[in-house]
Amino acid sequence: MNTQQFKGVWPALFTPVHANGKLNLHELEKLIELLISQEMDGIYILGSTGQGFLFGEEERKEITAHTMQIVKERVPVIVQVGAMNTEESIRLARHAADHGADGISSVGPIYYGGSGEMAFTHYRRIAEATDRPFFPYQIGGAASHEVIRKLLDLPQVKGMKLTTGKLLEIGTIKNMAGDRWQLFSGADELMCQAAITGTAGAIGTFYNMFGPTCKYVRSAFLDGKVNEANEFMLTFQGFIEKILPYVWTFINKGMELKYDIHIGPPKPPLLAPPMPWSDEEIIGMMEQVDSYGLLKETI
Amino acid sequence: MNTQQFKGVWPALFTPVHANGKLNLHELEKLIELLISQEMDGIYILGSTGQGFLFGEEERKEITAHTMQIVKERVPVIVQVGAMNTEESIRLARHAADHGADGISSVGPIYYGGSGEMAFTHYRRIAEATDRPFFPYQIGGAASHEVIRKLLDLPQVKGMKLTTGKLLEIGTIKNMAGDRWQLFSGADELMCQAAITGTAGAIGTFYNMFGPTCKYVRSAFLDGKVNEANEFMLTFQGFIEKILPYVWTFINKGMELKYDIHIGPPKPPLLAPPMPWSDEEIIGMMEQVDSYGLLKETI
Amino acid sequence: MNTQQFKGVWPALFTPVHANGKLNLHELEKLIELLISQEMDGIYILGSTGQGFLFGEEERKEITAHTMQIVKERVPVIVQVGAMNTEESIRLARHAADHGADGISSVGPIYYGGSGEMAFTHYRRIAEATDRPFFPYQIGGAASHEVIRKLLDLPQVKGMKLTTGKLLEIGTIKNMAGDRWQLFSGADELMCQAAITGTAGAIGTFYNMFGPTCKYVRSAFLDGKVNEANEFMLTFQGFIEKILPYVWTFINKGMELKYDIHIGPPKPPLLAPPMPWSDEEIIGMMEQVDSYGLLKETI
Amino acid sequence: MNTQQFKGVWPALFTPVHANGKLNLHELEKLIELLISQEMDGIYILGSTGQGFLFGEEERKEITAHTMQIVKERVPVIVQVGAMNTEESIRLARHAADHGADGISSVGPIYYGGSGEMAFTHYRRIAEATDRPFFPYQIGGAASHEVIRKLLDLPQVKGMKLTTGKLLEIGTIKNMAGDRWQLFSGADELMCQAAITGTAGAIGTFYNMFGPTCKYVRSAFLDGKVNEANEFMLTFQGFIEKILPYVWTFINKGMELKYDIHIGPPKPPLLAPPMPWSDEEIIGMMEQVDSYGLLKETI
Repeated sequence: MNTQQFKGVWPALFTPVHANGKLNLHELEKLIELLISQEMDGIYILGSTGQGFLFGEEERKEITAHTMQIVKERVPVIVQVGAMNTEESIRLARHAADHGADGISSVGPIYYGGSGEMAFTHYRRIAEATDRPFFPYQIGGAASHEVIRKLLDLPQVKGMKLTTGKLLEIGTIKNMAGDRWQLFSGADELMCQAAITGTAGAIGTFYNMFGPTCKYVRSAFLDGKVNEANEFMLTFQGFIEKILPYVWTFINKGMELKYDIHIGPPKPPLLAPPMPWSDEEIIGMMEQVDSYGLLKETI
Repeated sequence: MNTQQFKGVWPALFTPVHANGKLNLHELEKLIELLISQEMDGIYILGSTGQGFLFGEEERKEITAHTMQIVKERVPVIVQVGAMNTEESIRLARHAADHGADGISSVGPIYYGGSGEMAFTHYRRIAEATDRPFFPYQIGGAASHEVIRKLLDLPQVKGMKLTTGKLLEIGTIKNMAGDRWQLFSGADELMCQAAITGTAGAIGTFYNMFGPTCKYVRSAFLDGKVNEANEFMLTFQGFIEKILPYVWTFINKGMELKYDIHIGPPKPPLLAPPMPWSDEEIIGMMEQVDSYGLLKETI
Repeated sequence: MNTQQFKGVWPALFTPVHANGKLNLHELEKLIELLISQEMDGIYILGSTGQGFLFGEEERKEITAHTMQIVKERVPVIVQVGAMNTEESIRLARHAADHGADGISSVGPIYYGGSGEMAFTHYRRIAEATDRPFFPYQIGGAASHEVIRKLLDLPQVKGMKLTTGKLLEIGTIKNMAGDRWQLFSGADELMCQAAITGTAGAIGTFYNMFGPTCKYVRSAFLDGKVNEANEFMLTFQGFIEKILPYVWTFINKGMELKYDIHIGPPKPPLLAPPMPWSDEEIIGMMEQVDSYGLLKETI
Repeated sequence: MNTQQFKGVWPALFTPVHANGKLNLHELEKLIELLISQEMDGIYILGSTGQGFLFGEEERKEITAHTMQIVKERVPVIVQVGAMNTEESIRLARHAADHGADGISSVGPIYYGGSGEMAFTHYRRIAEATDRPFFPYQIGGAASHEVIRKLLDLPQVKGMKLTTGKLLEIGTIKNMAGDRWQLFSGADELMCQAAITGTAGAIGTFYNMFGPTCKYVRSAFLDGKVNEANEFMLTFQGFIEKILPYVWTFINKGMELKYDIHIGPPKPPLLAPPMPWSDEEIIGMMEQVDSYGLLKETI
């Protein structure tokens, strides 16, 4: 199996919904077509950004099936199947594999914190449920080195999604895994920093909104445009920190203004607080981020 | 509405299951009858101990309905309805109220950590979904004072379940709430310490196994048997720390040996590691805890 | 050696200073005479409350020598000798022992966090520097059980000062140490709760200000006055939380108003923010705490 | 005043001592001459690496005076003056300025944690004690944004030393400070990652041992050699993680083997555990790190 496709910039896909919280298939299709037209390297569905945990099991299966049908193998797709109950994750993983998912991913045990052994067993059972490459999330805490060593022994595990702001943790895993794994960073605001800490790719929320710019900057950085990356990352960090308290509100309006794509309200308990910015300001904030991507056309 | 019944020692009820993970109604009935015969002050169902989060929505409703039918108003029942999706919690709360639950309780937002505003809104919506007294869990973090002040303004909120080992946090809430709320501690190992920090009752795992002893010690302590409480609490703490890595394994065997009640295996991702003790040792460990309760008969 | 004297209520002595930060011997004498007249069970000097870390080595020796001379063996004295450099702690410990200190205490390594082995070696060297009972502070973190086991093997260690708000940590150490150690709690706001978690005594800031009341409540609690203890602890917790942001300001004015004792300004970097309360309010706040102690005269 | 000199790779100078813990002036001179010959961009003395906190005030002044005399303005020098007592820090700052230090730096309040106001006041008083550029350390916690805003208003503050593994914290400060400050990263293992997060330089332990290699890699990275930086950083991270439990032991032997410079034993409570590697292995480990620096000669 070729795992080399698991690299580059992957949007953690939004899941567009109607006002009643049900899947908005029309907007999902528009979003996926947009991202494919933007040459994103892959699509990661039903993670935190895609509100996977807030949909019921049947809805998750429906969203997976629709996504695979829309994508039609044009880009690789990873399906996040983490759930409170391991058995549900296993059912979701099998469904995703049956519908052609290129990879499976899962968060660790939710709510019931616990031992590394619990996390490992949860991951092992999901990994062994299908023949697809499996990408567990990072596990914090003292047990993690031991858990990672055991995960490295599972043939189905082909990498990890490492959503940490502490880059040394990524470097440590890279040094343990060598070329055996494809690592994805999860902190958009450290995309380039992670790219020199052993990651093969980045999965994140803001690649739905700034996919071409982020893909361009990441590539340009790896090709030597270090100062540009420095400037972009500071701008991107400033943007993310500014909108974070309003993230769902901003995303919704921003995607509408920029791409005429309607994400819909977040599902409770997620909140969308009142928007503090005008449409013009929102457009200005997005254009500032995109100004780094525009450089590519002039260079 | 009389909220004075929300006090004393409440087992966080185990949910007995068959080997396939489905509700074992027969054992549930035996367990509830045991606890009522032991004069427990109330029953708290489908919390962490009852693995509420690991059952599907329909199963949770089924367990609630059965419990209410078995209990038949002999003791008050609180139903924990926390779920990933607030809407699911609301449906569970309404179902519980329709089936006669005396109180509703819920954990805060799961997985999606976030602002105090998110937690408050989650709680408010569940609280307002029924006319029953509502008991949210403690919310950690900087926002908590503000959230508690806002919760105090909601008429449906009649107390909290405070699962913290930092007792000052309980005292702070008691000082904020005065007599307006009934507070339950959640750390079994600090039952008596919490009883002089403003709590009206205790909800916990080990009251399934040591209900009469714990109820006796708590009452005796409040009646002035301080040295006995000191000795019991140290013994109880030692017991809990010793079995904690094997908690589900120990509970299963211990309930069987002591009461011939079969809890069944925990649902994944929860683990039941191999038992390090013989039946005789298990019985000895339980008898040591119960030795404090036996004193009541001789005094 | 009799270690049974290491119990009861011990003020963590303030170190009165002049405006220039130098020891105010006159006020030190007044404070010590007050506390002895109040029948405090012992005195703990140069800890965090006594600003031990903010005096130079020679000043600490001078304060120790004066204290021993004033106390004249009327109550036991423990001297806190923790310093950045272990050698300085050893010199301070020897000096204290030479001047008749009844016990030596020390915090763990400051600034340079590190391994349990570092903490243990630091403690061992100070403990072995004199023939006096040694009382190390609690050590947080994963290494602590192992460190405590090693400390239990050192004959000079006769107990610990446990400044934690997590009482289970105290119970765990008590269960490990049995009757071998005398444990002191350090969180004033949990004085009675700690008294049923295996502690022999309490060392704290507010016993300078409310010594008789706290000693009365603690004793009355151990004699069975549980409800009174519950009410007092809530009042005391509320008081401490209220004044904490202004603690040095409040202490200074409160001790002056109540006892005509002048503590003087805290040494930088400690701050004394502007006082938000009038003298009358300060007196009222102190009287509320003391109202529980007054009960003893009427009972 | 030109603050542009505060950039590049600065060793956090070791302070060589004799077996008795006293300054080894001869070795200090050798070390400083080595680092100047290696064209290090500046020297940072008496920080954590230099064990500043473990020397007495007079010794710190003596080390500062000697260093300034040896350096003779060939490279800029920053003196770390943090101490338990703010007044001591002020005296150390004035002494350093009198002896020609180019900049002053200080950690925040030690031991007495506390409010942002306490940290700010501590920093302000040290900053205002001299006319030299002042570089406070990062302050963690919720108050930090407010403290940084206030520090930005102090004309003497010209930057910060940011010893964090969470790079977003550095980016946030850079976005707040713009070109007003020169920022130094403190985590050697993230040197290049920090260089694209707005830092002007790096201050660290391992630049004593690998100064030319680190300076080369950092420059080469900024000039576009991104893949080389990626590979170096992973190797460097692996090296640091491996030796960290033995850091003082390794440093001592490594500096002796590589440069015939004798650092001497660390001062207690710092420990130097037994060396697990042979001299040959130590040389091999150092050569692996330096292999990236050697590339420059062949390119």
